[in-house]
Amino acid sequence: MSENLDQSAVTVLGLGPMGRALAGAFLDAGLRTTVWNRTPGRDGELAARGAAAAGSAEEAAAAAELIVVCVVNDDAVDAIVRRPEVADALRGRTVVNLTADTPGRARESARWAAEQGIRYLDGAIMTPTTSIGTPAAVINYAGPAELHQELRPTLAALGGTQTHLGEEVGRAAAYEIALLDIFWTAMAGYAHALAIARAEGIGARELLPFAKGIGAILPPLFEQGAADLDGGAFSGAGNPMTSAVSSMAHVVHVSEEHGIDAGVMRAAEAMARRAIELGHGADGFLRTAEVLGHR
Amino acid sequence: MSENLDQSAVTVLGLGPMGRALAGAFLDAGLRTTVWNRTPGRDGELAARGAAAAGSAEEAAAAAELIVVCVVNDDAVDAIVRRPEVADALRGRTVVNLTADTPGRARESARWAAEQGIRYLDGAIMTPTTSIGTPAAVINYAGPAELHQELRPTLAALGGTQTHLGEEVGRAAAYEIALLDIFWTAMAGYAHALAIARAEGIGARELLPFAKGIGAILPPLFEQGAADLDGGAFSGAGNPMTSAVSSMAHVVHVSEEHGIDAGVMRAAEAMARRAIELGHGADGFLRTAEVLGHR
Repeated sequence: MSENLDQSAVTVLGLGPMGRALAGAFLDAGLRTTVWNRTPGRDGELAARGAAAAGSAEEAAAAAELIVVCVVNDDAVDAIVRRPEVADALRGRTVVNLTADTPGRARESARWAAEQGIRYLDGAIMTPTTSIGTPAAVINYAGPAELHQELRPTLAALGGTQTHLGEEVGRAAAYEIALLDIFWTAMAGYAHALAIARAEGIGARELLPFAKGIGAILPPLFEQGAADLDGGAFSGAGNPMTSAVSSMAHVVHVSEEHGIDAGVMRAAEAMARRAIELGHGADGFLRTAEVLGHR
Repeated sequence: MSENLDQSAVTVLGLGPMGRALAGAFLDAGLRTTVWNRTPGRDGELAARGAAAAGSAEEAAAAAELIVVCVVNDDAVDAIVRRPEVADALRGRTVVNLTADTPGRARESARWAAEQGIRYLDGAIMTPTTSIGTPAAVINYAGPAELHQELRPTLAALGGTQTHLGEEVGRAAAYEIALLDIFWTAMAGYAHALAIARAEGIGARELLPFAKGIGAILPPLFEQGAADLDGGAFSGAGNPMTSAVSSMAHVVHVSEEHGIDAGVMRAAEAMARRAIELGHGADGFLRTAEVLGHR
Protein backbone atom coordinates (compact mmCIF):
# COMPACT_ATOMS: atom_id res chain seq x y z
CA MET A 1 0.00 0.00 0.00
CA SER A 2 1.12 3.54 -0.64
CA GLU A 3 2.20 5.62 2.34
CA ASN A 4 2.11 9.40 2.30
CA LEU A 5 0.28 9.34 -1.00
CA ASP A 6 0.63 12.19 -3.40
CA GLN A 7 -2.16 14.55 -2.48
CA SER A 8 -1.54 17.08 -5.21
CA ALA A 9 -3.71 14.98 -7.54
CA VAL A 10 -7.14 13.39 -7.29
CA THR A 11 -9.46 11.41 -9.56
CA VAL A 12 -13.23 11.73 -9.44
CA LEU A 13 -15.26 8.82 -10.83
CA GLY A 14 -18.87 9.78 -11.46
CA LEU A 15 -19.97 13.15 -12.81
CA GLY A 16 -23.56 13.42 -11.73
CA PRO A 17 -24.46 16.73 -10.04
CA MET A 18 -22.62 15.71 -6.83
CA GLY A 19 -19.56 14.29 -8.62
CA ARG A 20 -19.25 17.49 -10.66
CA ALA A 21 -19.48 19.54 -7.45
CA LEU A 22 -16.72 17.44 -5.84
CA ALA A 23 -14.44 17.74 -8.88
CA GLY A 24 -15.10 21.48 -9.05
CA ALA A 25 -14.10 21.90 -5.40
CA PHE A 26 -10.86 19.95 -5.98
CA LEU A 27 -10.08 22.13 -9.00
CA ASP A 28 -10.79 25.26 -6.98
CA ALA A 29 -8.33 24.01 -4.36
CA GLY A 30 -5.66 23.76 -7.06
CA LEU A 31 -5.44 19.97 -7.27
CA ARG A 32 -4.64 18.18 -10.53
CA THR A 33 -8.04 16.64 -11.04
CA THR A 34 -8.86 13.80 -13.43
CA VAL A 35 -12.51 13.06 -14.12
CA TRP A 36 -14.46 10.26 -15.75
CA ASN A 37 -18.11 9.35 -16.14
CA ARG A 38 -19.68 6.18 -17.53
CA THR A 39 -21.95 8.19 -19.79
CA PRO A 40 -19.73 10.54 -21.84
CA GLY A 41 -20.32 14.26 -22.25
CA ARG A 42 -20.44 15.27 -18.60
CA ASP A 43 -16.83 16.48 -18.36
CA GLY A 44 -16.91 19.49 -20.68
CA GLU A 45 -17.27 22.26 -18.12
CA LEU A 46 -14.75 20.63 -15.76
CA ALA A 47 -12.23 20.18 -18.60
CA ALA A 48 -12.65 23.87 -19.43
CA ARG A 49 -11.77 24.61 -15.78
CA GLY A 50 -8.58 22.54 -16.06
CA ALA A 51 -9.63 18.97 -15.27
CA ALA A 52 -8.08 16.09 -17.23
CA ALA A 53 -10.84 14.13 -18.95
CA ALA A 54 -9.91 10.44 -18.85
CA GLY A 55 -10.98 8.14 -21.68
CA SER A 56 -11.72 5.17 -19.42
CA ALA A 57 -12.20 4.37 -15.73
CA GLU A 58 -8.88 2.49 -15.62
CA GLU A 59 -7.07 5.47 -17.13
CA ALA A 60 -8.76 7.74 -14.54
CA ALA A 61 -7.83 5.32 -11.73
CA ALA A 62 -4.20 5.31 -12.84
CA ALA A 63 -4.02 9.11 -12.95
CA ALA A 64 -3.93 9.70 -9.18
CA GLU A 65 -3.24 7.88 -5.93
CA LEU A 66 -6.52 9.09 -4.45
CA ILE A 67 -9.74 8.13 -6.24
CA VAL A 68 -13.04 9.61 -5.09
CA VAL A 69 -16.14 7.75 -6.28
CA CYS A 70 -19.61 9.30 -6.27
CA VAL A 71 -22.26 7.58 -8.34
CA VAL A 72 -25.93 6.69 -7.91
CA ASN A 73 -25.47 3.70 -5.57
CA ASP A 74 -23.02 0.94 -4.67
CA ASP A 75 -24.26 -1.30 -7.51
CA ALA A 76 -23.00 1.39 -9.85
CA VAL A 77 -19.73 1.62 -7.89
CA ASP A 78 -19.22 -2.13 -8.29
CA ALA A 79 -20.02 -2.01 -12.00
CA ILE A 80 -17.14 0.46 -12.38
CA VAL A 81 -14.44 -0.59 -9.91
CA ARG A 82 -14.83 -4.39 -10.05
CA ARG A 83 -14.03 -4.60 -13.75
CA PRO A 84 -10.62 -6.37 -13.70
CA GLU A 85 -8.88 -3.56 -15.61
CA VAL A 86 -10.10 -1.00 -13.09
CA ALA A 87 -9.43 -3.17 -10.03
CA ASP A 88 -5.88 -3.69 -11.33
CA ALA A 89 -5.39 0.04 -11.79
CA LEU A 90 -6.71 0.72 -8.26
CA ARG A 91 -4.38 -1.74 -6.54
CA GLY A 92 -2.12 0.07 -4.06
CA ARG A 93 -4.21 3.22 -4.34
CA THR A 94 -6.85 4.76 -2.09
CA VAL A 95 -10.60 4.87 -2.76
CA VAL A 96 -12.92 7.26 -0.92
CA ASN A 97 -16.47 6.15 -1.70
CA LEU A 98 -18.88 9.08 -1.29
CA THR A 99 -21.74 7.18 -2.93
CA ALA A 100 -24.91 6.88 -0.81
CA ASP A 101 -25.91 3.35 0.07
CA THR A 102 -26.45 1.13 3.11
CA PRO A 103 -24.03 0.23 5.94
CA GLY A 104 -24.03 -3.38 4.74
CA ARG A 105 -22.88 -2.33 1.27
CA ALA A 106 -20.13 -0.15 2.74
CA ARG A 107 -18.86 -3.15 4.74
CA GLU A 108 -18.97 -5.33 1.63
CA SER A 109 -17.06 -2.76 -0.44
CA ALA A 110 -14.44 -2.44 2.30
CA ARG A 111 -13.96 -6.24 2.36
CA TRP A 112 -13.58 -6.35 -1.41
CA ALA A 113 -11.12 -3.44 -1.39
CA ALA A 114 -9.00 -5.11 1.31
CA GLU A 115 -8.85 -8.30 -0.78
CA GLN A 116 -7.68 -6.24 -3.75
CA GLY A 117 -5.03 -4.33 -1.80
CA ILE A 118 -6.96 -1.07 -2.14
CA ARG A 119 -7.16 1.32 0.82
CA TYR A 120 -10.80 2.21 1.41
CA LEU A 121 -12.66 4.96 3.26
CA ASP A 122 -16.44 5.29 3.19
CA GLY A 123 -18.12 8.66 3.25
CA ALA A 124 -21.60 10.14 3.31
CA ILE A 125 -22.40 13.62 2.03
CA MET A 126 -25.21 15.07 4.16
CA THR A 127 -25.76 18.39 2.35
CA PRO A 128 -26.77 19.44 -1.19
CA THR A 129 -24.39 19.82 -4.13
CA THR A 130 -24.39 23.60 -3.69
CA SER A 131 -22.79 23.20 -0.24
CA ILE A 132 -19.69 21.39 -1.55
CA GLY A 133 -16.54 23.50 -1.18
CA THR A 134 -18.35 25.92 1.14
CA PRO A 135 -18.63 26.11 4.94
CA ALA A 136 -22.13 24.58 4.65
CA ALA A 137 -20.89 21.16 3.54
CA VAL A 138 -21.37 18.28 5.98
CA ILE A 139 -19.52 15.08 5.12
CA ASN A 140 -19.11 12.07 7.42
CA TYR A 141 -16.50 9.34 7.08
CA ALA A 142 -16.01 5.85 8.48
CA GLY A 143 -13.13 3.43 8.20
CA PRO A 144 -9.48 3.52 9.30
CA ALA A 145 -8.93 6.66 11.41
CA GLU A 146 -5.31 6.84 10.28
CA LEU A 147 -6.33 6.88 6.63
CA HIS A 148 -8.89 9.60 7.28
CA GLN A 149 -6.26 11.60 9.12
CA GLU A 150 -3.81 11.18 6.23
CA LEU A 151 -6.38 12.35 3.64
CA ARG A 152 -7.62 15.37 5.57
CA PRO A 153 -5.49 17.94 3.71
CA THR A 154 -7.02 16.88 0.39
CA LEU A 155 -10.57 16.29 1.65
CA ALA A 156 -10.47 19.78 3.18
CA ALA A 157 -11.01 21.05 -0.37
CA LEU A 158 -14.62 19.83 -0.07
CA GLY A 159 -15.21 22.38 2.70
CA GLY A 160 -17.48 22.57 5.70
CA THR A 161 -17.68 20.10 8.57
CA GLN A 162 -16.06 16.75 7.91
CA THR A 163 -16.31 14.23 10.72
CA HIS A 164 -14.75 10.81 11.16
CA LEU A 165 -17.48 8.77 12.87
CA GLY A 166 -15.48 5.66 13.65
CA GLU A 167 -13.34 2.78 12.42
CA GLU A 168 -16.38 0.61 11.71
CA VAL A 169 -16.75 1.28 8.00
CA GLY A 170 -20.59 1.05 7.99
CA ARG A 171 -20.96 3.89 10.47
CA ALA A 172 -21.15 6.83 8.06
CA ALA A 173 -23.85 5.06 6.04
CA ALA A 174 -25.71 4.10 9.24
CA TYR A 175 -25.86 7.73 10.34
CA GLU A 176 -26.91 8.71 6.85
CA ILE A 177 -29.75 6.18 6.78
CA ALA A 178 -31.04 7.36 10.15
CA LEU A 179 -30.90 11.01 9.02
CA LEU A 180 -32.54 10.26 5.68
CA ASP A 181 -35.25 8.49 7.67
CA ILE A 182 -35.94 11.67 9.65
CA PHE A 183 -35.69 13.88 6.60
CA TRP A 184 -37.88 11.99 4.15
CA THR A 185 -40.48 11.06 6.74
CA ALA A 186 -40.79 14.71 7.76
CA MET A 187 -41.02 15.79 4.12
CA ALA A 188 -43.75 13.18 3.54
CA GLY A 189 -45.62 14.65 6.51
CA TYR A 190 -45.31 18.14 5.09
CA ALA A 191 -46.42 17.05 1.60
CA HIS A 192 -49.41 15.28 3.12
CA ALA A 193 -50.27 18.27 5.29
CA LEU A 194 -50.20 20.49 2.18
CA ALA A 195 -52.63 18.11 0.48
CA ILE A 196 -55.02 18.26 3.45
CA ALA A 197 -54.66 22.03 3.68
CA ARG A 198 -55.46 22.42 0.00
CA ALA A 199 -58.53 20.20 0.34
CA GLU A 200 -59.65 22.47 3.20
CA GLY A 201 -59.11 25.61 1.12
CA ILE A 202 -55.88 26.64 2.87
CA GLY A 203 -53.00 27.70 0.63
CA ALA A 204 -49.47 26.47 1.25
CA ARG A 205 -48.30 30.02 1.94
CA GLU A 206 -51.10 30.49 4.48
CA LEU A 207 -50.03 27.37 6.34
CA LEU A 208 -46.33 28.23 6.07
CA PRO A 209 -45.76 30.38 9.18
CA PHE A 210 -47.38 27.71 11.34
CA ALA A 211 -45.56 24.89 9.53
CA LYS A 212 -42.26 26.67 10.18
CA GLY A 213 -43.29 26.95 13.84
CA ILE A 214 -43.70 23.16 13.95
CA GLY A 215 -40.30 22.80 12.31
CA ALA A 216 -38.77 25.05 14.96
CA ILE A 217 -40.00 22.97 17.89
CA LEU A 218 -38.61 19.71 16.49
CA PRO A 219 -34.90 20.14 17.42
CA PRO A 220 -35.60 20.71 21.16
CA LEU A 221 -38.02 17.77 21.12
CA PHE A 222 -35.36 15.65 19.39
CA GLU A 223 -33.02 16.61 22.23
CA GLN A 224 -35.54 15.66 24.92
CA GLY A 225 -36.28 12.41 23.08
CA ALA A 226 -32.60 11.49 22.84
CA ALA A 227 -32.18 11.98 26.58
CA ASP A 228 -35.31 9.89 27.18
CA LEU A 229 -34.21 7.04 24.93
CA ASP A 230 -30.63 6.84 26.16
CA GLY A 231 -31.90 7.14 29.74
CA GLY A 232 -34.72 4.62 29.28
CA ALA A 233 -37.33 6.94 30.82
CA PHE A 234 -40.10 8.44 28.68
CA SER A 235 -41.74 11.60 29.97
CA GLY A 236 -45.29 11.43 28.65
CA ALA A 237 -46.52 13.89 31.27
CA GLY A 238 -47.67 16.67 28.96
CA ASN A 239 -48.39 14.52 25.95
CA PRO A 240 -48.90 10.78 26.51
CA MET A 241 -49.01 8.15 23.75
CA THR A 242 -52.81 7.94 24.10
CA SER A 243 -53.15 11.64 23.15
CA ALA A 244 -50.81 11.13 20.21
CA VAL A 245 -53.03 8.31 18.91
CA SER A 246 -56.12 10.48 19.27
CA SER A 247 -54.48 13.29 17.25
CA MET A 248 -53.24 10.87 14.62
CA ALA A 249 -56.70 9.33 14.27
CA HIS A 250 -58.11 12.82 13.60
CA VAL A 251 -55.54 13.37 10.86
CA VAL A 252 -56.35 10.00 9.26
CA HIS A 253 -60.06 10.74 9.45
CA VAL A 254 -59.89 14.18 7.84
CA SER A 255 -57.45 12.95 5.20
CA GLU A 256 -59.63 10.03 4.15
CA GLU A 257 -62.78 12.20 4.25
CA HIS A 258 -61.09 14.14 1.44
CA GLY A 259 -60.06 10.96 -0.39
CA ILE A 260 -56.39 11.60 0.43
CA ASP A 261 -54.44 8.43 1.16
CA ALA A 262 -53.34 8.42 4.80
CA GLY A 263 -50.91 5.50 4.62
CA VAL A 264 -48.04 7.34 6.28
CA MET A 265 -50.12 8.52 9.25
CA ARG A 266 -51.86 5.13 9.53
CA ALA A 267 -48.43 3.50 9.84
CA ALA A 268 -47.33 6.09 12.42
CA GLU A 269 -50.56 5.48 14.35
CA ALA A 270 -49.87 1.73 14.25
CA MET A 271 -46.47 2.35 15.88
CA ALA A 272 -48.18 4.19 18.73
CA ARG A 273 -51.00 1.66 19.08
CA ARG A 274 -48.50 -1.17 19.35
CA ALA A 275 -46.69 0.70 22.14
CA ILE A 276 -50.03 1.16 23.94
CA GLU A 277 -50.80 -2.56 23.59
CA LEU A 278 -47.46 -3.25 25.21
CA GLY A 279 -48.47 -1.13 28.20
CA HIS A 280 -46.78 2.17 27.31
CA GLY A 281 -49.91 4.32 26.90
CA ALA A 282 -48.82 6.82 29.54
CA ASP A 283 -45.33 7.22 28.07
CA GLY A 284 -44.21 9.82 25.56
CA PHE A 285 -44.42 8.92 21.88
CA LEU A 286 -40.69 8.25 21.54
CA ARG A 287 -41.13 5.06 23.55
CA THR A 288 -42.13 3.72 20.09
CA ALA A 289 -38.42 3.85 19.14
CA GLU A 290 -37.72 1.20 21.73
CA VAL A 291 -40.78 -0.88 20.82
CA LEU A 292 -39.81 -0.87 17.13
CA GLY A 293 -36.40 -2.27 18.01
CA HIS A 294 -37.70 -5.11 20.20
CA ARG A 295 -39.34 -8.03 18.50
CA MET B 1 -78.21 36.74 22.15
CA SER B 2 -76.16 38.68 24.63
CA GLU B 3 -74.27 41.74 23.42
CA ASN B 4 -71.22 43.09 25.19
CA LEU B 5 -71.12 40.11 27.48
CA ASP B 6 -69.71 40.40 30.97
CA GLN B 7 -66.05 39.53 30.56
CA SER B 8 -65.12 39.71 34.20
CA ALA B 9 -66.21 36.10 34.60
CA VAL B 10 -65.52 32.88 32.73
CA THR B 11 -66.40 29.21 33.09
CA VAL B 12 -64.04 26.42 32.12
CA LEU B 13 -65.58 23.02 31.37
CA GLY B 14 -63.02 20.21 31.39
CA LEU B 15 -60.09 20.04 33.81
CA GLY B 16 -57.60 17.83 32.06
CA PRO B 17 -54.04 19.21 31.96
CA MET B 18 -55.02 21.79 29.30
CA GLY B 19 -58.29 22.78 30.95
CA ARG B 20 -56.49 23.34 34.25
CA ALA B 21 -53.87 25.46 32.46
CA LEU B 22 -56.63 27.59 30.87
CA ALA B 23 -58.47 28.04 34.16
CA GLY B 24 -55.18 28.92 35.88
CA ALA B 25 -54.44 31.61 33.29
CA PHE B 26 -57.92 33.13 33.71
CA LEU B 27 -57.45 33.16 37.50
CA ASP B 28 -54.02 34.79 37.10
CA ALA B 29 -55.67 37.48 34.97
CA GLY B 30 -58.07 38.22 37.82
CA LEU B 31 -61.25 36.81 36.26
CA ARG B 32 -63.97 35.20 38.38
CA THR B 33 -63.44 31.65 37.16
CA THR B 34 -65.88 28.79 37.60
CA VAL B 35 -64.65 25.29 36.87
CA TRP B 36 -66.21 21.88 36.38
CA ASN B 37 -65.02 18.45 35.29
CA ARG B 38 -67.05 15.33 34.54
CA THR B 39 -64.81 13.22 36.79
CA PRO B 40 -64.72 14.92 40.21
CA GLY B 41 -61.56 15.72 42.17
CA ARG B 42 -59.74 17.76 39.55
CA ASP B 43 -60.71 21.19 40.90
CA GLY B 44 -58.88 21.19 44.23
CA GLU B 45 -55.83 23.20 43.32
CA LEU B 46 -57.86 25.66 41.23
CA ALA B 47 -60.36 26.15 44.07
CA ALA B 48 -57.42 26.87 46.41
CA ARG B 49 -56.37 29.58 43.93
CA GLY B 50 -59.83 31.14 44.03
CA ALA B 51 -61.86 29.30 41.41
CA ALA B 52 -65.52 28.49 42.10
CA ALA B 53 -66.01 24.73 41.85
CA ALA B 54 -69.42 24.06 40.27
CA GLY B 55 -71.40 20.99 41.27
CA SER B 56 -72.73 20.35 37.77
CA ALA B 57 -72.11 21.39 34.17
CA GLU B 58 -75.39 23.33 34.10
CA GLU B 59 -74.44 25.20 37.27
CA ALA B 60 -71.03 25.97 35.71
CA ALA B 61 -72.68 27.10 32.46
CA ALA B 62 -75.00 29.44 34.35
CA ALA B 63 -72.12 31.01 36.30
CA ALA B 64 -70.68 33.08 33.41
CA GLU B 65 -71.64 34.45 30.01
CA LEU B 66 -68.48 33.03 28.46
CA ILE B 67 -67.95 29.27 28.65
CA VAL B 68 -64.65 27.79 27.51
CA VAL B 69 -64.72 24.05 26.80
CA CYS B 70 -61.60 21.93 26.60
CA VAL B 71 -62.06 18.17 26.82
CA VAL B 72 -60.62 15.13 25.06
CA ASN B 73 -62.60 15.43 21.81
CA ASP B 74 -65.90 16.72 20.41
CA ASP B 75 -67.74 13.52 21.39
CA ALA B 76 -66.92 14.47 24.98
CA VAL B 77 -68.03 18.06 24.30
CA ASP B 78 -71.38 16.82 22.98
CA ALA B 79 -71.83 14.47 25.96
CA ILE B 80 -71.57 17.54 28.19
CA VAL B 81 -73.24 20.43 26.34
CA ARG B 82 -76.05 18.57 24.58
CA ARG B 83 -77.65 17.36 27.81
CA PRO B 84 -80.90 19.38 27.81
CA GLU B 85 -80.18 20.96 31.21
CA VAL B 86 -76.81 22.20 30.01
CA ALA B 87 -78.06 23.31 26.58
CA ASP B 88 -80.79 25.31 28.38
CA ALA B 89 -78.22 26.92 30.66
CA LEU B 90 -75.99 27.82 27.67
CA ARG B 91 -78.76 29.52 25.68
CA GLY B 92 -77.90 33.18 25.07
CA ARG B 93 -74.33 32.62 26.22
CA THR B 94 -71.06 32.21 24.34
CA VAL B 95 -69.12 28.98 23.96
CA VAL B 96 -65.45 28.95 22.92
CA ASN B 97 -64.58 25.35 22.12
CA LEU B 98 -60.83 24.78 22.51
CA THR B 99 -61.20 21.00 22.22
CA ALA B 100 -59.10 19.38 19.47
CA ASP B 101 -61.12 17.63 16.78
CA THR B 102 -61.78 17.78 13.06
CA PRO B 103 -63.05 20.67 10.89
CA GLY B 104 -66.21 18.67 10.21
CA ARG B 105 -66.96 18.36 13.91
CA ALA B 106 -66.34 22.07 14.43
CA ARG B 107 -68.87 22.84 11.67
CA GLU B 108 -71.37 20.44 13.23
CA SER B 109 -70.94 21.99 16.68
CA ALA B 110 -71.40 25.47 15.23
CA ARG B 111 -74.64 24.39 13.51
CA TRP B 112 -75.98 22.88 16.73
CA ALA B 113 -75.01 25.95 18.74
CA ALA B 114 -76.76 28.25 16.24
CA GLU B 115 -79.95 26.16 16.53
CA GLN B 116 -79.77 26.48 20.31
CA GLY B 117 -79.18 30.23 20.29
CA ILE B 118 -75.64 29.81 21.60
CA ARG B 119 -72.84 31.98 20.19
CA TYR B 120 -69.97 29.76 19.14
CA LEU B 121 -66.28 30.22 18.40
CA ASP B 122 -63.97 27.34 17.61
CA GLY B 123 -60.35 27.37 18.70
CA ALA B 124 -57.24 25.22 18.43
CA ILE B 125 -54.41 25.35 20.92
CA MET B 126 -51.16 24.72 19.07
CA THR B 127 -48.72 24.72 22.01
CA PRO B 128 -48.27 22.65 25.21
CA THR B 129 -50.08 23.28 28.51
CA THR B 130 -46.97 24.97 29.92
CA SER B 131 -47.25 27.72 27.26
CA ILE B 132 -50.71 28.83 28.35
CA GLY B 133 -50.70 32.32 29.87
CA THR B 134 -47.17 32.93 28.57
CA PRO B 135 -45.83 34.58 25.40
CA ALA B 136 -45.19 31.08 23.99
CA ALA B 137 -48.89 30.20 23.63
CA VAL B 138 -50.24 29.87 20.09
CA ILE B 139 -54.01 29.66 19.78
CA ASN B 140 -55.98 29.88 16.54
CA TYR B 141 -59.66 30.71 16.23
CA ALA B 142 -62.33 30.40 13.56
CA GLY B 143 -65.91 31.61 13.43
CA PRO B 144 -67.55 35.05 13.52
CA ALA B 145 -64.82 37.70 13.39
CA GLU B 146 -66.96 40.08 15.39
CA LEU B 147 -67.34 37.57 18.19
CA HIS B 148 -63.60 36.92 18.24
CA GLN B 149 -62.99 40.65 18.35
CA GLU B 150 -65.43 41.05 21.23
CA LEU B 151 -63.81 38.25 23.26
CA ARG B 152 -60.22 39.35 22.72
CA PRO B 153 -59.84 41.16 26.07
CA THR B 154 -60.76 37.99 27.96
CA LEU B 155 -58.93 35.54 25.68
CA ALA B 156 -55.80 37.70 26.07
CA ALA B 157 -55.46 36.10 29.51
CA LEU B 158 -54.36 32.92 27.72
CA GLY B 159 -51.27 34.76 26.43
CA GLY B 160 -49.06 34.46 23.40
CA THR B 161 -50.13 34.70 19.78
CA GLN B 162 -53.84 34.38 19.17
CA THR B 163 -54.94 34.49 15.54
CA HIS B 164 -58.38 34.60 13.97
CA LEU B 165 -58.03 32.45 10.84
CA GLY B 166 -61.39 33.17 9.27
CA GLU B 167 -65.17 33.15 9.51
CA GLU B 168 -65.42 29.56 8.26
CA VAL B 169 -65.68 27.78 11.60
CA GLY B 170 -63.75 24.67 10.48
CA ARG B 171 -60.66 26.65 9.62
CA ALA B 172 -58.86 26.53 13.00
CA ALA B 173 -59.32 22.76 13.14
CA ALA B 174 -58.19 22.39 9.51
CA TYR B 175 -54.95 24.24 10.24
CA GLU B 176 -54.52 22.16 13.38
CA ILE B 177 -54.99 18.88 11.48
CA ALA B 178 -52.43 19.90 8.86
CA LEU B 179 -49.95 20.93 11.56
CA LEU B 180 -50.51 17.76 13.59
CA ASP B 181 -49.88 15.87 10.36
CA ILE B 182 -46.45 17.50 10.01
CA PHE B 183 -45.66 17.14 13.69
CA TRP B 184 -46.61 13.51 14.27
CA THR B 185 -45.21 12.30 10.97
CA ALA B 186 -41.88 13.98 11.76
CA MET B 187 -41.87 12.51 15.26
CA ALA B 188 -42.59 9.06 13.80
CA GLY B 189 -39.61 9.55 11.49
CA TYR B 190 -37.41 10.51 14.41
CA ALA B 191 -38.57 7.56 16.54
CA HIS B 192 -37.92 5.22 13.61
CA ALA B 193 -34.48 6.73 12.97
CA LEU B 194 -33.61 6.22 16.66
CA ALA B 195 -34.59 2.55 16.33
CA ILE B 196 -32.35 2.11 13.25
CA ALA B 197 -29.51 4.00 14.93
CA ARG B 198 -29.72 1.78 18.00
CA ALA B 199 -29.71 -1.36 15.85
CA GLU B 200 -26.54 0.00 14.21
CA GLY B 201 -24.92 0.69 17.57
CA ILE B 202 -25.43 4.46 17.44
CA GLY B 203 -26.76 6.10 20.60
CA ALA B 204 -29.52 8.71 20.43
CA ARG B 205 -27.17 11.34 21.84
CA GLU B 206 -24.58 10.51 19.17
CA LEU B 207 -27.16 11.00 16.43
CA LEU B 208 -28.57 14.15 18.05
CA PRO B 209 -26.34 16.89 16.60
CA PHE B 210 -27.01 15.57 13.09
CA ALA B 211 -30.73 15.06 13.78
CA LYS B 212 -30.96 18.67 14.95
CA GLY B 213 -29.21 19.66 11.73
CA ILE B 214 -31.95 17.92 9.74
CA GLY B 215 -34.56 19.70 11.89
CA ALA B 216 -32.92 23.03 11.10
CA ILE B 217 -33.09 22.60 7.32
CA LEU B 218 -36.82 21.79 7.35
CA PRO B 219 -38.26 25.33 7.75
CA PRO B 220 -36.42 26.74 4.68
CA LEU B 221 -37.43 23.65 2.70
CA PHE B 222 -41.02 24.13 3.85
CA GLU B 223 -40.80 27.68 2.53
CA GLN B 224 -39.43 26.57 -0.85
CA GLY B 225 -42.09 23.85 -1.01
CA ALA B 226 -44.91 26.28 -0.26
CA ALA B 227 -43.76 28.56 -3.06
CA ASP B 228 -43.53 25.54 -5.40
CA LEU B 229 -46.98 24.23 -4.55
CA ASP B 230 -48.79 27.57 -4.73
CA GLY B 231 -46.89 28.35 -7.93
CA GLY B 232 -47.47 24.93 -9.50
CA ALA B 233 -43.76 24.50 -10.37
CA PHE B 234 -41.63 21.91 -8.62
CA SER B 235 -37.88 22.44 -8.66
CA GLY B 236 -36.41 18.97 -8.56
CA ALA B 237 -33.09 20.13 -9.98
CA GLY B 238 -30.89 19.27 -7.01
CA ASN B 239 -33.00 16.44 -5.67
CA PRO B 240 -35.51 14.84 -8.02
CA MET B 241 -38.28 12.40 -6.98
CA THR B 242 -36.24 9.49 -8.37
CA SER B 243 -33.39 10.26 -5.92
CA ALA B 244 -35.86 10.51 -3.08
CA VAL B 245 -37.21 7.05 -3.89
CA SER B 246 -33.70 5.63 -4.00
CA SER B 247 -32.93 7.07 -0.54
CA MET B 248 -36.23 5.85 0.84
CA ALA B 249 -35.62 2.34 -0.50
CA HIS B 250 -32.26 2.31 1.33
CA VAL B 251 -33.98 3.27 4.57
CA VAL B 252 -36.61 0.55 4.12
CA HIS B 253 -33.93 -2.01 3.32
CA VAL B 254 -31.73 -1.25 6.35
CA SER B 255 -34.75 -1.06 8.64
CA GLU B 256 -36.13 -4.42 7.58
CA GLU B 257 -32.65 -6.03 7.67
CA HIS B 258 -32.80 -5.24 11.40
CA GLY B 259 -36.35 -6.54 11.72
CA ILE B 260 -37.66 -3.02 12.30
CA ASP B 261 -41.05 -2.36 10.72
CA ALA B 262 -40.71 0.22 7.95
CA GLY B 263 -44.41 0.89 7.39
CA VAL B 264 -44.10 4.67 7.60
CA MET B 265 -41.24 4.89 5.10
CA ARG B 266 -42.87 2.30 2.83
CA ALA B 267 -45.98 4.51 2.71
CA ALA B 268 -43.86 7.61 2.03
CA GLU B 269 -42.03 5.74 -0.73
CA ALA B 270 -45.40 4.75 -2.22
CA MET B 271 -46.36 8.45 -2.40
CA ALA B 272 -43.19 9.17 -4.39
CA ARG B 273 -43.54 6.09 -6.61
CA ARG B 274 -47.08 7.10 -7.47
CA ALA B 275 -45.87 10.56 -8.50
CA ILE B 276 -43.18 8.95 -10.68
CA GLU B 277 -45.78 6.70 -12.33
CA LEU B 278 -47.75 9.83 -13.15
CA GLY B 279 -44.70 11.27 -14.92
CA HIS B 280 -43.28 13.49 -12.18
CA GLY B 281 -39.94 11.68 -11.64
CA ALA B 282 -37.87 14.77 -12.43
CA ASP B 283 -39.87 17.00 -10.07
CA GLY B 284 -39.10 17.72 -6.43
CA PHE B 285 -40.68 15.49 -3.81
CA LEU B 286 -43.37 17.99 -2.85
CA ARG B 287 -45.11 17.33 -6.15
CA THR B 288 -46.55 14.42 -4.14
CA ALA B 289 -48.74 16.93 -2.30
CA GLU B 290 -50.53 17.65 -5.52
CA VAL B 291 -50.72 14.00 -6.56
CA LEU B 292 -52.23 13.03 -3.19
CA GLY B 293 -55.00 15.54 -3.69
CA HIS B 294 -55.91 14.44 -7.22
CA ARG B 295 -57.76 11.17 -7.59
